[in-house]
Amino acid sequence: MENKRYYGIDIGGTTVKVGLFEGEKLLDKWSVPTVTADGGRQIIPDIAASLRGPAAGAALAVPGAVLPDGTVNRCVNLGWGVCRPTDEFTALTGIPCKVLNDANAAALGEQRLGGGKGFESVLFVALGTGVGAGVVLDGRLRVGARGTAGELGHLCWDPADTTAQCTCGHIGCLEQYCSATGIVRLASQAGVTGMICKQVMDAAAAGDKRLEAVVDKACDILGWGIASACAIVDPEAVVLGGGVALAGEYLRLKVQDAFEKYAFHACLGTEIHLATLGSDAGMIGTALYAMD
Amino acid sequence: MENKRYYGIDIGGTTVKVGLFEGEKLLDKWSVPTVTADGGRQIIPDIAASLRGPAAGAALAVPGAVLPDGTVNRCVNLGWGVCRPTDEFTALTGIPCKVLNDANAAALGEQRLGGGKGFESVLFVALGTGVGAGVVLDGRLRVGARGTAGELGHLCWDPADTTAQCTCGHIGCLEQYCSATGIVRLASQAGVTGMICKQVMDAAAAGDKRLEAVVDKACDILGWGIASACAIVDPEAVVLGGGVALAGEYLRLKVQDAFEKYAFHACLGTEIHLATLGSDAGMIGTALYAMD
Repeated sequence: MENKRYYGIDIGGTTVKVGLFEGEKLLDKWSVPTVTADGGRQIIPDIAASLRGPAAGAALAVPGAVLPDGTVNRCVNLGWGVCRPTDEFTALTGIPCKVLNDANAAALGEQRLGGGKGFESVLFVALGTGVGAGVVLDGRLRVGARGTAGELGHLCWDPADTTAQCTCGHIGCLEQYCSATGIVRLASQAGVTGMICKQVMDAAAAGDKRLEAVVDKACDILGWGIASACAIVDPEAVVLGGGVALAGEYLRLKVQDAFEKYAFHACLGTEIHLATLGSDAGMIGTALYAMD
Repeated sequence: MENKRYYGIDIGGTTVKVGLFEGEKLLDKWSVPTVTADGGRQIIPDIAASLRGPAAGAALAVPGAVLPDGTVNRCVNLGWGVCRPTDEFTALTGIPCKVLNDANAAALGEQRLGGGKGFESVLFVALGTGVGAGVVLDGRLRVGARGTAGELGHLCWDPADTTAQCTCGHIGCLEQYCSATGIVRLASQAGVTGMICKQVMDAAAAGDKRLEAVVDKACDILGWGIASACAIVDPEAVVLGGGVALAGEYLRLKVQDAFEKYAFHACLGTEIHLATLGSDAGMIGTALYAMD
């Protein structure tokens, strides 16, 4: 039986989520604290020591760029520079291992088993501290020539908005408006400080006009970005995930309206759904990627 | 031998280009005038009557939207509404037939045998009366769920620029600045009227500062659009084709500069090349599509 078993391992900045799967069936799951001290060198040994039996394969999801050859090109939140964690994992466990970006992993999970189930092509948008995305076309995750496909957060909305300085070095990137951090920044520009994103969303939904204008601006720009991505890849459906998407239908309807404002007419039928797998999306998608 | 032969048929608004291929080898080519009168009903019979012997397959490239099931959804330049030209073609000739959009056909031709040769993933940009594009990923043309992948021309650059009213119904679409028509429009805004696009490009290249500013603006916006598309699909290379790209290196270098200004850092290695197949790109790509 163990030769049909796969580990899906989602490495976050504070916790590693590990799932043991047989096909799409989750047999067992647990978590391991992420020890980022000392360049994160304990992370892979800690994961290896936690495993519960042999498996035919495994995959790691990491919060950073992954090149097509499996080289991880910096994960600031883990303390990692350029490294090959799959080699270390296989050396310790004997289990063949792949690696992918965490937003890409969540995209695959949501497309196969979550908000995008039933669609062969899905744009998944992860609205968290930043804005990540993943592109599934013709049933396969498409990570791009340099592993950077789906960088929706770095579409340039306004190259003249010097208040929106992005960590990537550019000005006016979408994630400076539409991420949790971006929404808090817009609220602050509107004179409301000291709130986290959820409080901004809740107050807006409860009728605070000033904060609703903030959320409307964020959703307008997100709808523009999704319309732009759909003009390029034309997926059947878009799935909204990440912490900001926990605002649910309130967010989805505003994004849908903005999408329809900007979308090329032939893309208007694109369905926009909410993610359904929550914080397990990455772990599930990672296991599916291991099996692919 | 004829069971290895394929027709590539590129239907333009004034001329149909027909090529007879054996694999990638062009055996013969000719053209047929496009008779658009009477709803373009003579176009397919004229093509069928021009064929030079049997073949294993054929494909048609058309200047309009093509749904994944092969339905053509309006080709204004041909006089066609919603129709299925492949059914008519096969009924007249007995040859199995596919259909695709003309920019997509040129994308496939340039990726396999032209400016994108050697790359498995290419974004092809056709700079003509409008701006079309095609996306080849992992060696296959990706036309999208509704056949509208690669609508680079309808990325929204400036939703507030009411001088840039697009035929699609939106405001500020990229093709209102970067197509031949768009460049002539920008020249007119700069006070230079009565020139065609080639004259604007030539005068700018010869040192006319006012027109060089026009070309710089067009290239800045095109570089932004290409950077946006690369952030979503991350191709190995971009190929610039269509009439405007006949300006050659003068155009390519300006687009490269603008791309580097806007591109996400991990995409900076993306190569930008000029198309090499000229006006045969669509016919060649159409034949390759017939063989796929």
